[in-house]
Amino acid sequence: MINKIGRDIPDEYLKNGVEPFQGIYYRDGYQYKKAAPTVRAYVKPDGNKLVDSIHDAVVKSGLKDGMTISFHHHLRDGDYVVNMVMKEIHKLGIKDLTVCATSLGKAHNYLVTCIEDGTVTGISTSGIRDEIGEVVSEGKLKHPAVIRSHGGRARAIEDGTVKIDVAFIGASTSDAYGNASGKGGKSDTGVLAYADGDAKYADKVVVITDTLVDGPNFPASIEGVDVDYVVKVDSIGDPEKIATGALRLTKDTRELNMAKEVAKCIYYSGYFKDGFSFQTGAGGPSLATTTFLKQYMEKDHIKCGWAMGGVTEPIVDLFKAGYVNEILDDQSFDLAAVASAHTQNHFEISASQYANPFNKGAFVNQLSFVILGALEIDTGFNVNVVQGSNGILRGAPGGHPDTAAGASVSIIVAPLIRSRMPTVRDKVTSVTTPGESIDIVVTDYGVAVNPRRKDLLAAFKDTNIPLKTIEELRDLAYQYAGKAKASRIYRPGRCLSRIP
Amino acid sequence: MINKIGRDIPDEYLKNGVEPFQGIYYRDGYQYKKAAPTVRAYVKPDGNKLVDSIHDAVVKSGLKDGMTISFHHHLRDGDYVVNMVMKEIHKLGIKDLTVCATSLGKAHNYLVTCIEDGTVTGISTSGIRDEIGEVVSEGKLKHPAVIRSHGGRARAIEDGTVKIDVAFIGASTSDAYGNASGKGGKSDTGVLAYADGDAKYADKVVVITDTLVDGPNFPASIEGVDVDYVVKVDSIGDPEKIATGALRLTKDTRELNMAKEVAKCIYYSGYFKDGFSFQTGAGGPSLATTTFLKQYMEKDHIKCGWAMGGVTEPIVDLFKAGYVNEILDDQSFDLAAVASAHTQNHFEISASQYANPFNKGAFVNQLSFVILGALEIDTGFNVNVVQGSNGILRGAPGGHPDTAAGASVSIIVAPLIRSRMPTVRDKVTSVTTPGESIDIVVTDYGVAVNPRRKDLLAAFKDTNIPLKTIEELRDLAYQYAGKAKASRIYRPGRCLSRIP
Repeated sequence: MINKIGRDIPDEYLKNGVEPFQGIYYRDGYQYKKAAPTVRAYVKPDGNKLVDSIHDAVVKSGLKDGMTISFHHHLRDGDYVVNMVMKEIHKLGIKDLTVCATSLGKAHNYLVTCIEDGTVTGISTSGIRDEIGEVVSEGKLKHPAVIRSHGGRARAIEDGTVKIDVAFIGASTSDAYGNASGKGGKSDTGVLAYADGDAKYADKVVVITDTLVDGPNFPASIEGVDVDYVVKVDSIGDPEKIATGALRLTKDTRELNMAKEVAKCIYYSGYFKDGFSFQTGAGGPSLATTTFLKQYMEKDHIKCGWAMGGVTEPIVDLFKAGYVNEILDDQSFDLAAVASAHTQNHFEISASQYANPFNKGAFVNQLSFVILGALEIDTGFNVNVVQGSNGILRGAPGGHPDTAAGASVSIIVAPLIRSRMPTVRDKVTSVTTPGESIDIVVTDYGVAVNPRRKDLLAAFKDTNIPLKTIEELRDLAYQYAGKAKASRIYRPGRCLSRIP
Repeated sequence: MINKIGRDIPDEYLKNGVEPFQGIYYRDGYQYKKAAPTVRAYVKPDGNKLVDSIHDAVVKSGLKDGMTISFHHHLRDGDYVVNMVMKEIHKLGIKDLTVCATSLGKAHNYLVTCIEDGTVTGISTSGIRDEIGEVVSEGKLKHPAVIRSHGGRARAIEDGTVKIDVAFIGASTSDAYGNASGKGGKSDTGVLAYADGDAKYADKVVVITDTLVDGPNFPASIEGVDVDYVVKVDSIGDPEKIATGALRLTKDTRELNMAKEVAKCIYYSGYFKDGFSFQTGAGGPSLATTTFLKQYMEKDHIKCGWAMGGVTEPIVDLFKAGYVNEILDDQSFDLAAVASAHTQNHFEISASQYANPFNKGAFVNQLSFVILGALEIDTGFNVNVVQGSNGILRGAPGGHPDTAAGASVSIIVAPLIRSRMPTVRDKVTSVTTPGESIDIVVTDYGVAVNPRRKDLLAAFKDTNIPLKTIEELRDLAYQYAGKAKASRIYRPGRCLSRIP
């Protein structure tokens, strides 16, 4: 079936309630009964939740062939939890599991073994990087991999599309009753925001920590009233590796110039007002924008009400310097963010509060600006951040489509050409974020505004922003790099990228 | 049908899943699917939740005849919200509503009008005091009133026994998106703990505040992602009247002597260890216990890990003086508690975290000690705190049965005789808390230990605690007051008191 942005979605994927994309607001006002877990009443006061090992927790949880388990990725490349749990499950010989992760990367390569021998036959995730991305791209996963944004995952859990049987939640600290937090301990992750829905909607919940503390471990991100078992291990991960994933600071002049143009677009947009809110992606030019934004804030005596997102050091610096009143954090992206998460006015928000399009109004809906990266952008302003131009899965939607749909002004910043491949092109390999939700594309060769946004075109008219049409940018890209090969959705295996 | 404690429960009440009491741990391990609300997806970023008036919020909520609405009572006798909302509903002519409140008292007397004319035909609540108690006791409510403990209410909401169609949540502060808090503003209530389940499980949620603040109003007790409408009114209540309800400080020598015996029982119980936890009720002797407990803590260099409950000034004083590490607050019972709720290590917990017997382990299960009052106690150690000996509803179970069932040591403190009525007697008028969960009864004429607690009897053996059997206490009470008239469950109308 041809979806709203002209992509042919094979019918084999359109089952179990999966619909082709029909526009970013297609489901506005949709009424549904929320999902709910099946739980066990702990009436007696003698219930001890501590179990001796992950093995015991897996056994006690009742995990069986065909079930769905979940993980979060707050430790990013430093995470030990996924591999530790999967090794125990593997030893137990449990098969045909679906892993519902918030993201998967090179810390989780033991999953490759599990995919190859049928321990894991389904994956739903945001990121799918490194060897796991390759093995899935090669078609080795039995069922189609489902890639969701962070908001899309929260939505799928809350509306029952995804039913988690057992959630395994790595936690920096926990008490014996499962009141768990991302703060403190040996492996401080700042927040545990992505695990919120897992704890509330999974039938069984296992907390895995390396730092057991006296109760009550408050404030708790995960409430003990939702937790069945607590396991103490030697280490849940290496927090030094939190920042090694997507995050990238830049000193590259070309990238800094793009960042300057992004800040200029924000400044002249008409939405740059005292109390404005914003989020930046973790790419180099996105992060560098904060420096230039600060100059405009100084100039006009304007303060940011709140910054949100994957929180990074440049945001924390603005916050500490008093340019940002509050930080809303669904993921502490580096150790500066982790440290800041312990301070006043730096608040943890759940993935659902952050971006779930099916709750009663996620914070993305209140964003003034979002600044995002792209692997590819097409002349329909559609953006791809998941699939390399060679078809291999290598990225993550994260909050990309969520924030783009919610923000008043969504800005993509990307170089026109990367490794002799045109970034702006006729058609992206696969669509992560539909052009309907993209307002501005900033490249090193000019800035294109979505013709839909007449207000922005008018606002930029008498500025020195180097406006071009998206077609002009494409033509330049093709001129410098040669025309990209006809894009196609790479599907020798069964990878299917979906809009939430 | 005769229940486990020998009470005949009329069959007319044993329908719709209501079972007779079968022991406090009868449901331990019970598996059930949690309830879930039917909600509407707010996908578009333009949803403004502010409505002009309570009238408009009621209309927009879709409230219809026969539905269930809910309120909390954090403003206690100072609450304006229930009456304001009920007046608008009354004007609209909506009939046959069930009011699911956390407690009802003299601030809510407009409900009498609503009961008398059929606007309200059902009530479920913890407290049912003053005129409302009288009118229900007179049989004017069409359907049987259901009285639940705070934990029992949270349980009933989470397991679907109670389905709230529209929750009206008075909040000290809120932003325009419904992120609401009990802290700040003109009507500071400290916490909003009882409204947590209402926000999460009601189909429609209306926040009513007198102090609208810039967003995000964090930390929020009620998350905007659960809220449909926000109404700004002139005043939600008079916080000066928070402390006028159940709370009572004492200088009475007899009560102070009882309090001294309670502290002595705690001291010699074998559970008085560093890090212990406790809760006291709001009655005079219960509160006075803290003074004597402090002396024992000083003597043995012991600190309390956490105090929980309806938080009162005596607890706050201990906390400020460093004798208590953390406070877990499900209700700020006076202005000292409200002020303390703004400080570090004073944490808000939801009613479910506090006492729901059907979640995975409420905090009541971790209590070392609970000190509670009683209207009547019988020789089976059963306690009545709801119904006066004349049959009129006048009290509230609050957390009484929840904490008694959960705590390692539960202590009842009450005078042997009140207004020439024996407190200890053959049979209580109605059973709020079953004797199975009561360990010690402290009166001004001696202390009785439940024979079930051989450990406590042994621990008290060589102390100067004036031990008596419960029958000896009863005999003394009858001797001084004359034998109480045969108790009966007063049911000219349809009031039915239930154990959660």
